[in-house]
Amino acid sequence: MRNVYVQGVGMVKCGRYTEKIETKAAEACMNALQDAGMKWRDVQAAYAAHVMQGPSAGQKVFSQIGITGLNVTNVENACASGSTALHHAYYDIAYGKYDVVLVVGFEKMKRGVIDANKGEERSYEDKLGLQVMPSEYAQKAQRHMYEYGTTPEQMAKVSVKNHKNGTYNPYAHYQKNFTLEEVLQSRPIADPLTLLQACPTSDGAAAVILVSENVMKKNRNQDPIKFVGTAVQTETILEDIDLTTRTANIAYQMAGLGPKDISLAEVHDAFTIGELLHYEALGFCAPGESGSLIDEGVTEITGSLPVSPSGGLQSRGHPLGMTGVAQVCEIAWQLRGEAGQRQVQNNPKVGLAHTQGAGGICAVNIFSL
Amino acid sequence: MRNVYVQGVGMVKCGRYTEKIETKAAEACMNALQDAGMKWRDVQAAYAAHVMQGPSAGQKVFSQIGITGLNVTNVENACASGSTALHHAYYDIAYGKYDVVLVVGFEKMKRGVIDANKGEERSYEDKLGLQVMPSEYAQKAQRHMYEYGTTPEQMAKVSVKNHKNGTYNPYAHYQKNFTLEEVLQSRPIADPLTLLQACPTSDGAAAVILVSENVMKKNRNQDPIKFVGTAVQTETILEDIDLTTRTANIAYQMAGLGPKDISLAEVHDAFTIGELLHYEALGFCAPGESGSLIDEGVTEITGSLPVSPSGGLQSRGHPLGMTGVAQVCEIAWQLRGEAGQRQVQNNPKVGLAHTQGAGGICAVNIFSL
Repeated sequence: MRNVYVQGVGMVKCGRYTEKIETKAAEACMNALQDAGMKWRDVQAAYAAHVMQGPSAGQKVFSQIGITGLNVTNVENACASGSTALHHAYYDIAYGKYDVVLVVGFEKMKRGVIDANKGEERSYEDKLGLQVMPSEYAQKAQRHMYEYGTTPEQMAKVSVKNHKNGTYNPYAHYQKNFTLEEVLQSRPIADPLTLLQACPTSDGAAAVILVSENVMKKNRNQDPIKFVGTAVQTETILEDIDLTTRTANIAYQMAGLGPKDISLAEVHDAFTIGELLHYEALGFCAPGESGSLIDEGVTEITGSLPVSPSGGLQSRGHPLGMTGVAQVCEIAWQLRGEAGQRQVQNNPKVGLAHTQGAGGICAVNIFSL
Repeated sequence: MRNVYVQGVGMVKCGRYTEKIETKAAEACMNALQDAGMKWRDVQAAYAAHVMQGPSAGQKVFSQIGITGLNVTNVENACASGSTALHHAYYDIAYGKYDVVLVVGFEKMKRGVIDANKGEERSYEDKLGLQVMPSEYAQKAQRHMYEYGTTPEQMAKVSVKNHKNGTYNPYAHYQKNFTLEEVLQSRPIADPLTLLQACPTSDGAAAVILVSENVMKKNRNQDPIKFVGTAVQTETILEDIDLTTRTANIAYQMAGLGPKDISLAEVHDAFTIGELLHYEALGFCAPGESGSLIDEGVTEITGSLPVSPSGGLQSRGHPLGMTGVAQVCEIAWQLRGEAGQRQVQNNPKVGLAHTQGAGGICAVNIFSL
């Protein structure tokens, strides 16, 4: 297997677009090409990650910028779509199929209420409202509070931290600080989760260009970031191990690294409790200790293991197909020392990106200097 | 690169389903597993090809039959979705990532009129109705008539042939013969194309299990079919070569085969003129000679180069995500000599599957004994 590198990354600011999403996604691709010092004609294959942009949306994006006449695949894996596309692009290069692969993740979210199960027969749990995301995360939160004494304040601190990080990120949808009290006193969504503990509804696009060692070029006098571990997994009811833990273990083993080696992480904080649960599942702390980890400031930008310095899903936003790709943009900027005011302070060497998607999907991608 | 084989194929009858598509797709997977002599636990990774079944539809299918806890990816490439998923599964095995990969293609088509560009700003061509499939194919038909003297009768013969083939296929949506007059006199859609020259709107599901040589087992005393060539390409405005020709050339070269070596083909006959154009683009005859090819009966089941013995999109149906996978089921059955009343008569050794998708996508997969 050949080494794979992140040659270029690019993004556009998340928000609520009036433009066509294809236009914004093409802009993200151009930004990534510029960052990579490459032209559209250097790209040998491309993936488009999105969940609800309709047939051939990737082809519509690429045809705008000259990326035609090659192998293009649209990948959908719910909130892990972008991460899954990166996983496949990694192997395309590692195995020598291509030298340069572009991955773009984008989404223009639907306006209004989305009923993912529209027209389908509903399960008993679904009719009770137990199978929508906020209530699923709220149930996990209640269980964590019961088992480990985790507090609503500890969860709310995730929102405070990530919103603060977002104020330093020009690509974030929201750039506004909230106090702990504001987060806790915002509108209840599913107890104990409040409105400011749920990711907003955002549109966005991000792109990453992966290359093999033989075409790799230095970025501003630095070697490109190395893509060292990747795993995509679905959940199973046959074993006890957490989906994130099982997925991360595959990626850790592939990278020859463990949780102790991670300098920073972008994790799936669709709801605040999610980030705490993932601290534990990714091995950043022991089970039940995620509340202490956030209390101690370990995962702040200034801490020893910054988590979601980009602002995460909470503040950057969560355009479904974009998220896994946007995380890698942030990791590249952080490892290169280009993250400006939100630059982590621990001289980072290794970054981990984690997404979790509806349907029981998890993806973990690991990058190192 | 390792050799890749088709160990098992399975399908369910196309039609208009009242059941959930996930249920039917799971049934197709079980049929393929049974055909392969394998259990769900033998599957190491899986792809789900569909265009409009919503987020994580593949995971919903696989979780019903125990295929959990592994790498699952939903692939969308319009009408070439199934073929594209097979392409990626091929490389997963060829490069040694997995030994057993399941690909399922399925679609429950939307009822009523579908407006793929709903809510989007329309181009001038779109407003004129020039960018919907029937008119695009009709324009190609008019051009072919003008350039080569191809006749409406020659196009209609594709429908007659494929509907006749479909009467022998228990999985086909329609099993009814039509005379040349009936086809020509059916309701005009876009001149010269009539209703019986357009594929019907069908739901369906098909599955294929690909394996590496080291886990390959004989199917009923035969070696499994070998997957020898695969290409997925997007169109470009920068060169003159036809998209299908360019894609096929990559697959031919990879297989070390040419058009003369093909024993049978399943081609994208969404509209009858499509099949004629693809005869030429795939190299089955010279440009302009496709009308003669159908006149001479060469592409009949009894001919020297049978095309779409399954009944093709015209009669089996065209459930978008299913089509590319269903084509490979047919090729496997034909090469194994298991196609019953529709068994081709030319002692087939090599089969070619071709799909063409909206957004300028083409995929060609080649299989041999």
